[in-house]
Amino acid sequence: MAWTNSKDAALRERAMAVIPNGMYGHQSVMLLPDDYPQFYDRAQGAYLWDTDGNRYIDYLCGYGPNLFGYGHEAIDAAYVDRMKRGDTMTGPGQAMVELAEALTAQVSHADWAMFCKNGTDATTMAMMIARNFTRKKTIVLAKGAYHGAAPWCTPLKNGVTEADRANQVFYEYNNVESLEAAVKAAGSDLAAIFASPIKHDTFVDQELPDPAYARRARELCDEHEALLIVDDVRAGFRLARDCSWSLVGVKPDLSAWGKAIANGHPISALLGAEKARFAAATIYATGSFWFSAAPMAASLATLKLIRDTDYLERTIALGERLRAGLDEAAGRHGFTLRQTGPAQMPLIMFDDDPTGAKAYFWNNALLKRGVYFHPWHNMFMTTAMTDADIDHTVEAADVSFKLLKAAGPLPPVEKLAFLHSMVD
Amino acid sequence: MAWTNSKDAALRERAMAVIPNGMYGHQSVMLLPDDYPQFYDRAQGAYLWDTDGNRYIDYLCGYGPNLFGYGHEAIDAAYVDRMKRGDTMTGPGQAMVELAEALTAQVSHADWAMFCKNGTDATTMAMMIARNFTRKKTIVLAKGAYHGAAPWCTPLKNGVTEADRANQVFYEYNNVESLEAAVKAAGSDLAAIFASPIKHDTFVDQELPDPAYARRARELCDEHEALLIVDDVRAGFRLARDCSWSLVGVKPDLSAWGKAIANGHPISALLGAEKARFAAATIYATGSFWFSAAPMAASLATLKLIRDTDYLERTIALGERLRAGLDEAAGRHGFTLRQTGPAQMPLIMFDDDPTGAKAYFWNNALLKRGVYFHPWHNMFMTTAMTDADIDHTVEAADVSFKLLKAAGPLPPVEKLAFLHSMVD
Repeated sequence: MAWTNSKDAALRERAMAVIPNGMYGHQSVMLLPDDYPQFYDRAQGAYLWDTDGNRYIDYLCGYGPNLFGYGHEAIDAAYVDRMKRGDTMTGPGQAMVELAEALTAQVSHADWAMFCKNGTDATTMAMMIARNFTRKKTIVLAKGAYHGAAPWCTPLKNGVTEADRANQVFYEYNNVESLEAAVKAAGSDLAAIFASPIKHDTFVDQELPDPAYARRARELCDEHEALLIVDDVRAGFRLARDCSWSLVGVKPDLSAWGKAIANGHPISALLGAEKARFAAATIYATGSFWFSAAPMAASLATLKLIRDTDYLERTIALGERLRAGLDEAAGRHGFTLRQTGPAQMPLIMFDDDPTGAKAYFWNNALLKRGVYFHPWHNMFMTTAMTDADIDHTVEAADVSFKLLKAAGPLPPVEKLAFLHSMVD
Repeated sequence: MAWTNSKDAALRERAMAVIPNGMYGHQSVMLLPDDYPQFYDRAQGAYLWDTDGNRYIDYLCGYGPNLFGYGHEAIDAAYVDRMKRGDTMTGPGQAMVELAEALTAQVSHADWAMFCKNGTDATTMAMMIARNFTRKKTIVLAKGAYHGAAPWCTPLKNGVTEADRANQVFYEYNNVESLEAAVKAAGSDLAAIFASPIKHDTFVDQELPDPAYARRARELCDEHEALLIVDDVRAGFRLARDCSWSLVGVKPDLSAWGKAIANGHPISALLGAEKARFAAATIYATGSFWFSAAPMAASLATLKLIRDTDYLERTIALGERLRAGLDEAAGRHGFTLRQTGPAQMPLIMFDDDPTGAKAYFWNNALLKRGVYFHPWHNMFMTTAMTDADIDHTVEAADVSFKLLKAAGPLPPVEKLAFLHSMVD
């Protein structure tokens, strides 16, 4: 079947009338290559179908939530069974206690859990708890790290006031000296150090955490009686069956979770250590659907798979197969890729591509061949992918490299230039 | 079956180990009469069953979401059908466009829609859009009104900094002079006036909006080129099949929605007028599950019932039957109730009950008789209630009044005194 997009175009036109700019947020394709569809009809396993019926192997995985495959039978059955007995009730179900028990058993630094809906809810609660615990205000964050979409942390500043960003000091990820300088700048007012588990910022190479940096963050928090916060919303349970910083031997006081913890059902969480329990109990935190039972049941089913299957090793093996295959294909056509991040959360960019022109051409060509890649956001592997999916991807990539080479010099990607002008 | 709570007690003990203070947020029963259960096993129609198997007619309705009955067949079927085809995908489904079309057709002031998860998401976006639209900072809010659980608006101040509450001026709800004074205090910096559609603050009598106040709020926003924001999260579609302020003939620029718009499935929304479209399109707003298709399908099914049934008239009639029955029963035993708010969103308090002692005794007695009331938060009617449910409630209330009278003088409710000492 030839690739068409007439239904998507019609939906976009309707969307322009009733949604600001036709779409907003991280799922807007406004900044992606021109042919990326905006609307999807169906998702199953590792695949996504747009409204025109085109099928894609989906390496975005819903921007993280799809860990065990879209429409996972056992997880969705747990959701529906619980939903039929009662979901959003006047109080929580038993599943809330069971889930808090399961998460604190699974995550070694955690003694308690709170549940919410957005990753931003969890990071915002973490900030409030740190300020409540320390009775101090300043939070130290890595420059360029994403911690959510509230006024205190959005990447764009429209509608944000200076006061919203008060009491913040920034450091360079993985840079001990920079971190120490930021802590020094906080003086006697340090409430918390925020850290992403890996550097998974958009547009730049991903970096694993330097253990010396992670350990120093822990030490500085202890010296200043501040709290160490790991924002594991995006990477949680994708790097380890524990908090991601268990890999570098560092226990945070608080960790924020979301995305994959119920394989796509809406729930996020904040986990914390004993010492922060009272501070957590005395902030005001709530939401209309935070106590709903069905996503908690789905998360329990997801945790069972996390405990009992080789999902982690499988996603790593799939990611490594993809990385090796793409490197080989790129080389055949004279290109060099910058493949960074853990294999199961890959970011794939071109060397020598300052305007994104190569990436946009290549990603668009892959899209037309049934592969959904992203040119500047890290991607995700799901256990629903097979070796055959990876091999098909590599073949599509090979053809797309060939087309890229044949295309010759390409104009800069104007929408990217515009975006970069908007961000400081 | 005699009322018991041993399973709930056991769950609470487990919860104390793994959840700060055993529970948090608006569904914690810490501040309710002593026998209120914390955990629930099941909900169906108008009823709620706790984990010990006790059944209650639930007048909290999940704190608002349950409008058409727990487990509504058509709404839940829409959710599950869409979920099986794909819920949290790498992009939105067609339902997003359909829902934006349905809401803007239904709500007269609205030309566009954005979707999110928490009511707080919608009110926070409204604030950001107003600031982006006006390039001004000050928001004017009614003292004591609830607009969510972010640092800028929580009722408690733990973990909140002064900067989080910068650029805010307060007025007394329904008081034109107070509103004018607040706007004057904002000077040339007015970005928005926030208003609840009715005064539905906790602990105090509810008030319908004075049309003169609502019109003055509109005028002041127009004079200052600021935006008028109605926070319809709690009351949306419970007072009207349109924005609640359609009842007083005033169109806001932005309205925040949530709670009942998908009958308990997790979705909230911000609706806006044409003039705020560009400002809405240029803020950064997103969330992991904001584009999930299943809650949107459920909301479409809910809107169909809102359009096609007499749900509104039914909930009003049920509320009026309850109000009349309770007044009569109270009078028989020499008590006077203060029943305020719209009949379908009632708040029921006792006259001459400064410490809450009467309310707590009476509510607890009702609970033991299968009626779930709240002593200081407004309640909600659902179409799943029947006249027989109301009559049973009035009978239980009658017995409870009798017991209250027999109990004689009661000690003050200490937990309430503690709470009031925490809030300014």
